[in-house]
Amino acid sequence: VVNRRFFDAKGSLSLQKVSEITGALLTRGDPGEVIEAVAPLEHAGPGELASCHNASYVAALRTTKASAVLVTPEHAKDAPHGAALFEMRDPKKGLSLLLEKLYGGVKPMVGIHKTAVISSSARLGHDCSVGPGVVIEDGAEIGNHCVIGANSVIGRSVVIGHRCTIESHVSISYACIGDDVSIKPGARIGQRGFGFFMGDGNERIAQLQLGAVVIGDRVDIGANVTIDRGSLRNTVIESDVHIDNLVQIAHNVFIGQGSVILSQTGISGSTSVGKGVILGGQVGVAGHLSIGEGARILSKSGVIGHVAPGAILAGYPAVPRRLFFKSIAVLMGLTKRGTQNILKKNNSGTEN
Amino acid sequence: VVNRRFFDAKGSLSLQKVSEITGALLTRGDPGEVIEAVAPLEHAGPGELASCHNASYVAALRTTKASAVLVTPEHAKDAPHGAALFEMRDPKKGLSLLLEKLYGGVKPMVGIHKTAVISSSARLGHDCSVGPGVVIEDGAEIGNHCVIGANSVIGRSVVIGHRCTIESHVSISYACIGDDVSIKPGARIGQRGFGFFMGDGNERIAQLQLGAVVIGDRVDIGANVTIDRGSLRNTVIESDVHIDNLVQIAHNVFIGQGSVILSQTGISGSTSVGKGVILGGQVGVAGHLSIGEGARILSKSGVIGHVAPGAILAGYPAVPRRLFFKSIAVLMGLTKRGTQNILKKNNSGTEN
Amino acid sequence: VVNRRFFDAKGSLSLQKVSEITGALLTRGDPGEVIEAVAPLEHAGPGELASCHNASYVAALRTTKASAVLVTPEHAKDAPHGAALFEMRDPKKGLSLLLEKLYGGVKPMVGIHKTAVISSSARLGHDCSVGPGVVIEDGAEIGNHCVIGANSVIGRSVVIGHRCTIESHVSISYACIGDDVSIKPGARIGQRGFGFFMGDGNERIAQLQLGAVVIGDRVDIGANVTIDRGSLRNTVIESDVHIDNLVQIAHNVFIGQGSVILSQTGISGSTSVGKGVILGGQVGVAGHLSIGEGARILSKSGVIGHVAPGAILAGYPAVPRRLFFKSIAVLMGLTKRGTQNILKKNNSGTEN
Repeated sequence: VVNRRFFDAKGSLSLQKVSEITGALLTRGDPGEVIEAVAPLEHAGPGELASCHNASYVAALRTTKASAVLVTPEHAKDAPHGAALFEMRDPKKGLSLLLEKLYGGVKPMVGIHKTAVISSSARLGHDCSVGPGVVIEDGAEIGNHCVIGANSVIGRSVVIGHRCTIESHVSISYACIGDDVSIKPGARIGQRGFGFFMGDGNERIAQLQLGAVVIGDRVDIGANVTIDRGSLRNTVIESDVHIDNLVQIAHNVFIGQGSVILSQTGISGSTSVGKGVILGGQVGVAGHLSIGEGARILSKSGVIGHVAPGAILAGYPAVPRRLFFKSIAVLMGLTKRGTQNILKKNNSGTEN
Repeated sequence: VVNRRFFDAKGSLSLQKVSEITGALLTRGDPGEVIEAVAPLEHAGPGELASCHNASYVAALRTTKASAVLVTPEHAKDAPHGAALFEMRDPKKGLSLLLEKLYGGVKPMVGIHKTAVISSSARLGHDCSVGPGVVIEDGAEIGNHCVIGANSVIGRSVVIGHRCTIESHVSISYACIGDDVSIKPGARIGQRGFGFFMGDGNERIAQLQLGAVVIGDRVDIGANVTIDRGSLRNTVIESDVHIDNLVQIAHNVFIGQGSVILSQTGISGSTSVGKGVILGGQVGVAGHLSIGEGARILSKSGVIGHVAPGAILAGYPAVPRRLFFKSIAVLMGLTKRGTQNILKKNNSGTEN
Repeated sequence: VVNRRFFDAKGSLSLQKVSEITGALLTRGDPGEVIEAVAPLEHAGPGELASCHNASYVAALRTTKASAVLVTPEHAKDAPHGAALFEMRDPKKGLSLLLEKLYGGVKPMVGIHKTAVISSSARLGHDCSVGPGVVIEDGAEIGNHCVIGANSVIGRSVVIGHRCTIESHVSISYACIGDDVSIKPGARIGQRGFGFFMGDGNERIAQLQLGAVVIGDRVDIGANVTIDRGSLRNTVIESDVHIDNLVQIAHNVFIGQGSVILSQTGISGSTSVGKGVILGGQVGVAGHLSIGEGARILSKSGVIGHVAPGAILAGYPAVPRRLFFKSIAVLMGLTKRGTQNILKKNNSGTEN
């Protein structure tokens, strides 16, 4: 349920207005009727709209008590007759736009908390909000309308663009960040990468890392993510990249525009990921590789070679998805049929 | 060894008392004799008790210098003759109860550090300890006897029950938490989940996430864990759930009572985990799935389908454990016997 | 590029001096000529030195505009004729030494920030730098020339040696740490391990953990790493160990000298890792195991048995690397040749 302890709708919307916001067709119901909230199908009641944007929700759609439902044309027949009916190809997008309108745009309090420690040589744009315990070091430059959450630390000379949201406990150093970037709690950006050389006594000595992290616009970085700075070149995250929680991005990695990286995936040093690539969760990519534009790597895969543009891979070592799943089917078939005996027979030619 | 720099026993205990606390039978030794500390078998000396709660410790049991040992009846014969002897079915539980009695119950200093930043609209129960640099935002409600570690941030309207321990550097937002919950350093609870929709310019736009995180009683949450809040419904962690370090729990996930999730496992959005489930380490579970009550998923498995109650699965894609290990045996057998040649022969019918 | 916003060379060096620092032979060029910076091959220009320390860089070597290049003897022929030429067996080491000389040794400002909260019973050596919001609890002891980054928390009685660098947002408790240790942002060291016992009501109760974390000299610990303290014995990290980001080390684990652990790997409780072991990324090691000296475990492997010294393993369950890759080749061969049909034919003896 939309938890009213934390979230408040900013007012009600007529069904006519809902249609305009979402782009959905109102195929049943009174355009003048209003909704006041959005809720999941199984919890929604009078005055609330619910969306069926996943096939697994159809059972809930049939019994929902929502005043209005938002569905694909295919599922219109499953909506209760009493509910106003919105139809569109992509109800999830409609829902997102509606939520944005009903609940979005809440501005955090603007101002700098008195416990924040901001260097006199740092520059801060207008209408920023800086939380308690925040540290902003020498020469850092932060744009307008930024929010810096409690206890975050913005290092020396870091650049952050406009309208960025940095949540609590974030560390940023040696980084230049664009506009409209969102960074969730505990992300670590710009620390020294993992490299060392052998000293005279054959002990490992950490290598200086003299590159930076360069992040584009509208990038989304998850909680407790780690992005190391480059060694001599930069670690680069292009615009519109979305990175889920607990992802590791090593030094010198390049992530192309619009790529999506799911939780707990790791990319080793100096690997380059093309535009629009999707890496599933818990994927591992070895170092010094190139992943072609639009490629898709399924969750838990291990990539140890270059990947062609548009390829869809799975498994470890990663192979084309179809081949991976067929190989599993073959192996399971062999296992169930007691293949070892068959083969033994063929081999010796004597057993029955 | 029990490191006396950090931990101090609160006094000595007679063997009679040890028997009462642990529930173990004192089958050899003087009930009036005392022990003053607990130590591992290989380090224990006079005045110390050691436990043999794992079969791999039997060699150490035979040579221990401990004054008293706690063993299963099977291993009683392996205890040195000079040591007092406690026998019980589950020495690990006895040991835990004894440690609790000898070393437990240390109360952190009660009080609110002067550098903590607490909103005037937040409510704090009695006998709480709030560390330096802690931030508690508007409308948050915290029960009695809670400990909030240094530099943690408790967000707007968050609810925390009684006797909770929040360690340092924790971020909590959009969450309602029960009693006796323990949260280790760096855990991130309640941040926006990973969801987006395509904007007009085809750029990805982060979706509003209007659900909360609801956590029951006696839940244990590991260091640097990430638990995202729900999108429209809540992310729910029921009572008695134990979550190890670096686990990822996505939006709308449900974890049933008493489940255990080992380190570095990730659960994707909207998946439901039944009661008493055990997920090993580095497991990945895809989204929108249901894992039945009491199921057990071995470490490193990847679950991409629903799981029946009580099932024990392994591998990727996860299959019944027995089948997984048999398939590996089959594959290794084929590999070692040079199966490719055999098959080639069968196929062509001509080679020798 | 060496980003001059963040890093400044401390002066210029003659080629003669570069030869002395790196140990490389100057086989072409004027020893009196100077360089002022180091840059990657494709970005370097006049006055800059570039290194070719990876075979994949040879194309960039051929076209670099660097004034001087550092190469292996094999690649000397690929260097542009106009560039001064340094040759050595290990250009990466030469490069590291040169970077250290040109850019290293930058000392952070010494002093204790006025917002740091330091117990009167804590002891701090000379020439330390303690950042804003740092908390140092009762009885902690910190050596000389240490840097403690903003908002880090050093717990009660913790010991830290000389010349350690603790970056921002680090939590350390119940730990004794040697000299020259580097800990990156968000690392969690010393929290209670993951252990519990069943209470009377059959609920899980977290077990007291009375061991510490003991860390040697020159250890490097990555961002958002978690290292739990021991239960009765200690968790031990010996000297010269390097641990990459997001690694999990459970209670009672022992890591031998000089071992290297790559990102997102997890080691379960009570496992012992020998000296000089290399664990790739996303490796999982089960509990109570022993990994022999010098063993190497490839990325994404799952280790569920003891490992012999010097072994090189891959896969899950981990087997010798050669066997793993051969087994994959066998499986892919079977899959591509439609083995299921072949086997069915052999089995029934009737199908065509």
